[in-house]
Amino acid sequence: MTHSIAFAALVALLATITPVVSAETLRYVPKKSELKYVFATADPVLRVRPGDIVETEAADQFENVKDPKSGWEPLRPNPQTGPFYVEGAEPGDALAVTILDLEVSSDVGVGGIFPGFGILTSSKYTPMLGAAAPARFWLYPIDKEKGTAEFRAKDSDFTVKIPLAPFLGCLGVAPADGEARTTLTPGEWGGNMDAPPVRKGTTVYLPVNVKGALLYLGDGHAAQGEGEIAGTAIEVGMKVKIQVDVIKGQKLAWPRMEDADYLMAVGSYRPLEDALRIAYTELIAWLHREYGLSELDAYELLSKVSVTDVAEVVDPNYTVIAKIPKKFLPPKTKGPR
Amino acid sequence: MTHSIAFAALVALLATITPVVSAETLRYVPKKSELKYVFATADPVLRVRPGDIVETEAADQFENVKDPKSGWEPLRPNPQTGPFYVEGAEPGDALAVTILDLEVSSDVGVGGIFPGFGILTSSKYTPMLGAAAPARFWLYPIDKEKGTAEFRAKDSDFTVKIPLAPFLGCLGVAPADGEARTTLTPGEWGGNMDAPPVRKGTTVYLPVNVKGALLYLGDGHAAQGEGEIAGTAIEVGMKVKIQVDVIKGQKLAWPRMEDADYLMAVGSYRPLEDALRIAYTELIAWLHREYGLSELDAYELLSKVSVTDVAEVVDPNYTVIAKIPKKFLPPKTKGPR
Amino acid sequence: MTHSIAFAALVALLATITPVVSAETLRYVPKKSELKYVFATADPVLRVRPGDIVETEAADQFENVKDPKSGWEPLRPNPQTGPFYVEGAEPGDALAVTILDLEVSSDVGVGGIFPGFGILTSSKYTPMLGAAAPARFWLYPIDKEKGTAEFRAKDSDFTVKIPLAPFLGCLGVAPADGEARTTLTPGEWGGNMDAPPVRKGTTVYLPVNVKGALLYLGDGHAAQGEGEIAGTAIEVGMKVKIQVDVIKGQKLAWPRMEDADYLMAVGSYRPLEDALRIAYTELIAWLHREYGLSELDAYELLSKVSVTDVAEVVDPNYTVIAKIPKKFLPPKTKGPR
Amino acid sequence: MTHSIAFAALVALLATITPVVSAETLRYVPKKSELKYVFATADPVLRVRPGDIVETEAADQFENVKDPKSGWEPLRPNPQTGPFYVEGAEPGDALAVTILDLEVSSDVGVGGIFPGFGILTSSKYTPMLGAAAPARFWLYPIDKEKGTAEFRAKDSDFTVKIPLAPFLGCLGVAPADGEARTTLTPGEWGGNMDAPPVRKGTTVYLPVNVKGALLYLGDGHAAQGEGEIAGTAIEVGMKVKIQVDVIKGQKLAWPRMEDADYLMAVGSYRPLEDALRIAYTELIAWLHREYGLSELDAYELLSKVSVTDVAEVVDPNYTVIAKIPKKFLPPKTKGPR
Repeated sequence: MTHSIAFAALVALLATITPVVSAETLRYVPKKSELKYVFATADPVLRVRPGDIVETEAADQFENVKDPKSGWEPLRPNPQTGPFYVEGAEPGDALAVTILDLEVSSDVGVGGIFPGFGILTSSKYTPMLGAAAPARFWLYPIDKEKGTAEFRAKDSDFTVKIPLAPFLGCLGVAPADGEARTTLTPGEWGGNMDAPPVRKGTTVYLPVNVKGALLYLGDGHAAQGEGEIAGTAIEVGMKVKIQVDVIKGQKLAWPRMEDADYLMAVGSYRPLEDALRIAYTELIAWLHREYGLSELDAYELLSKVSVTDVAEVVDPNYTVIAKIPKKFLPPKTKGPR
Repeated sequence: MTHSIAFAALVALLATITPVVSAETLRYVPKKSELKYVFATADPVLRVRPGDIVETEAADQFENVKDPKSGWEPLRPNPQTGPFYVEGAEPGDALAVTILDLEVSSDVGVGGIFPGFGILTSSKYTPMLGAAAPARFWLYPIDKEKGTAEFRAKDSDFTVKIPLAPFLGCLGVAPADGEARTTLTPGEWGGNMDAPPVRKGTTVYLPVNVKGALLYLGDGHAAQGEGEIAGTAIEVGMKVKIQVDVIKGQKLAWPRMEDADYLMAVGSYRPLEDALRIAYTELIAWLHREYGLSELDAYELLSKVSVTDVAEVVDPNYTVIAKIPKKFLPPKTKGPR
Repeated sequence: MTHSIAFAALVALLATITPVVSAETLRYVPKKSELKYVFATADPVLRVRPGDIVETEAADQFENVKDPKSGWEPLRPNPQTGPFYVEGAEPGDALAVTILDLEVSSDVGVGGIFPGFGILTSSKYTPMLGAAAPARFWLYPIDKEKGTAEFRAKDSDFTVKIPLAPFLGCLGVAPADGEARTTLTPGEWGGNMDAPPVRKGTTVYLPVNVKGALLYLGDGHAAQGEGEIAGTAIEVGMKVKIQVDVIKGQKLAWPRMEDADYLMAVGSYRPLEDALRIAYTELIAWLHREYGLSELDAYELLSKVSVTDVAEVVDPNYTVIAKIPKKFLPPKTKGPR
Repeated sequence: MTHSIAFAALVALLATITPVVSAETLRYVPKKSELKYVFATADPVLRVRPGDIVETEAADQFENVKDPKSGWEPLRPNPQTGPFYVEGAEPGDALAVTILDLEVSSDVGVGGIFPGFGILTSSKYTPMLGAAAPARFWLYPIDKEKGTAEFRAKDSDFTVKIPLAPFLGCLGVAPADGEARTTLTPGEWGGNMDAPPVRKGTTVYLPVNVKGALLYLGDGHAAQGEGEIAGTAIEVGMKVKIQVDVIKGQKLAWPRMEDADYLMAVGSYRPLEDALRIAYTELIAWLHREYGLSELDAYELLSKVSVTDVAEVVDPNYTVIAKIPKKFLPPKTKGPR
């Protein structure tokens, strides 16, 4: 099965899950004053129905680095667009968010190193004695036609072009139990997963914890290494097109993802092996409940064929994605599709 | 650059590093009684010169599972072939082992779950109350012509073919400081890294800790998931063809690898984030010393383009591989090539 | 210096820090409907001035276990009393809460094991395959006169008396950055630290993140092992008497504590070594800024004389307390006292 | 029960376990050339019988720091005295080593910070970018009469006396499976546990892995903080008097200890929570098998009364000790005593 056929098949499958009475395409462009800095229960900026398509934008948070006169406050991390209230979504359901399109809108991306951030320097939650790394920024001119961003070394004259591979660093909902969590943190609610698979063609499943789910998105990444080790991707503004659905009665403990090629379960915690344990126990539960494999058969099969993505090791929780290529799956026996 | 051209280029490069006066191809087939169960200083089974090619075998350790009458003792893990004494290798040098060919020799591979092993059950070093998983084996019939091994579920009638992707689970040398380490453990000496890149076309660099380096290899894996989460790959016997070289004066703290596409640094420790920290500080040091990038430029660039492999999370130390695609490298400024 | 003299000295010191114009003793008994389940910015139940004494109660959360007809919902963890608004407390100040008295009010304490909780069984953030521990409760009859609670084995006829050593499992304020956190979680805001030193005679310093600080308390523990390994202490209701002060301009990153004998710095995170790193870098900063030791001298001295308390290893963050006996301190050079 | 009575009782108990036919007191003073730097199978320096008392010495490894002309090579860590071959000890038995006396023999102790060592600086197994701490030493003059060592700050004129509390940083046997491990590392074989309870009055139980057990000891510590956070205690030479016994058929997975007041189980691994899990599962197994508590009753009881010692967080494995005060124990039902 080629990718394009598989993607078509996925779209066809998606079409079956929700009785789309009169899906609409809605547009919402956030004003600076409407941006959010916590995943929480808050007044929605837009109400959508299952099946609706939303065209919106992820803000470019580093405008102040590129232009100190831009009026942006420096370094308030990961402003979010939203929340979007999804009609009919109730606690115990799952939200299915399909990324239909992402387009880098900035001309220059920003990367950098910050005090207290990064896996290889003294950080807030792994503090060491001695001076932490100083703040330092790299600008990445973007060539939209060629689809590249340019890395320019600061201490030598080396430059290299990096292919654009845009995804959303943040996609999340209001957390459970009345919690509000910063937009730096990933967790059961999704959030700042910094996960490259949150790209065009992927459907992200999130637990619904409050009525309306309250969906947020932001933190456009033009490209990122696995682990995002120094603390940033190539950070950009982005045009975003998503389709939102609700899977009634599909209770999720953690986010899941699916594209043409993979089932993916996400774990976000520390230490890194616990993020991995969460991701794999979730993937095994998925294979057990919806594909009819016993837990031990699934455990054994994954030990032979799974893919493990280290999404990031720099946020307050680390994020690991456990993946199984769909070509190794049994026929689906149960579940929403 | 296509892979085949790149591989040719790599071979050409390799040809430059060692003045091969009269490289030979040596053959060594271990008797059962010669197999080793620790990486240690021991009498060599063969002496090789830099540039020599060795044709040998990695034992099939699970013969007793397939045939209890085979005479193998059950479950003594990871028997090693070797050690090979490499002429001219001295502490402070690096050993360069290029995998020229690997061929699965077993007709049936074995996978399994063992008490005390595996990231998702009570294990020796992450013990939990309650019964651990019982020992359970899966047999994987191998079709050498089609290049597949077949997974057969034990609790349902599902089967699926897995493409062969052979590599050596173990490749290591005598450890430093007079240590001897079991063949279950990876570390500074290489050892049981369970790293899929230890495949045909890859050169593995290992620190030389004792005169002659004392190279061991074993633990043939026909295919393995990233993380080897349940504790085994598809375990098989293997025919092995390697070329051994010495890089004088190249002091290494940890193993490194290189193939046509990647520079790779290996870290093996617990917790998983420390294995990752080791791998990335090593990769940054490599980029700094041999490719002229400042440490912070390297850190920033890797945050945008690196690949992180979780090789295994089941051995006494966990193994992570930090990789940079060669297409993002500056020209080499220093070092053996 | 005996304890009683030291305690008197501490009280004398406390008297110096706040100009107590007209300190009062205030009483507040929460109704069930007023109990809180998140540390968050919420409407205060009481306003207090620096120097005021508050007499209040920590609810007995396990009444439903002892009497299913009690009307309590089962297992909603750690109900909090508060928040108390402290006049004059502003972000960047520290709150000083001195525990003047704690009195166990329950006749029977409760301990237990819950699915998803405990360091030695499959838990929410360290999940393992296979059945988690089932819910199981132990009742501890309390003899207030003798000051003991009785452990009664369930699977044999062994009983043993445990001396009461009451403390508050939870003491915290509204978190920073607009976050709201469950009463299961400890962190920069204090919260569910499950730290035995939060007992009579101790002053707890907490960062002020919002105007009025918004102080919460709850989770009475009649006695607890170090680590609280199975997930509970001897859980009881408690009468509580505290004195509240504000230290203007004393910016804290993490909670601190002080009693007659020790300076104590608290770190709450995962993995456990990061909680420990937080606690010790905070303690070193304290010794450096207020006692005139260089960072390296403080590091060296603590390596010789410090005490390390593992408060708990079962909550969403683990809690470690780094302590230095006051007898090893230099004279104070700076700071609130 | 007072300590002195309890200690007498312990000695009485000890007298019962081994049929001491003709116990002797043996003396052995190691020459510098006889000191060992790995725990391994090696030729014994002395043969002892169960019940024998050994008077020996732990070398002062930092003589070169105090006197560069001392002829000691700098910084070869933790030289060991031994191994002692114990007659009758065979794999599957336990060795019981009772510390009868420890006497600090150095006039000056040494503490220090080393590159690559310490929990709060870049270290070998938790590497960070940027310069590691430089080597720095503190000398501690020892007053044997008053029983103190003096800390002298290097960056201010503060001094303070620290009470001597001598123990052995290293006590171990030849490891299992043919391994040899450096004297920096603690593990199943004991080794560099840096555990303050290895003091006068304590009996340490170690697994016997090879015929004769092969006991090593060294690394005298005049005093140490819990965690030994910067990497050293007050390091001294020591006169050592121990009694050695064998408990036939007592198979141990990890070291255990016992004194007048506590049963103690030791876990040495990373991350710190896994060291703690090892220690507590071992302690629960001990309570279950020899004191008749069910595993869940033991788990619950320890959650209420256990003591958790963080022995060290600086060696290649971290060491945690799980303790139960003997006053909370049921009567012994089984086992060697």
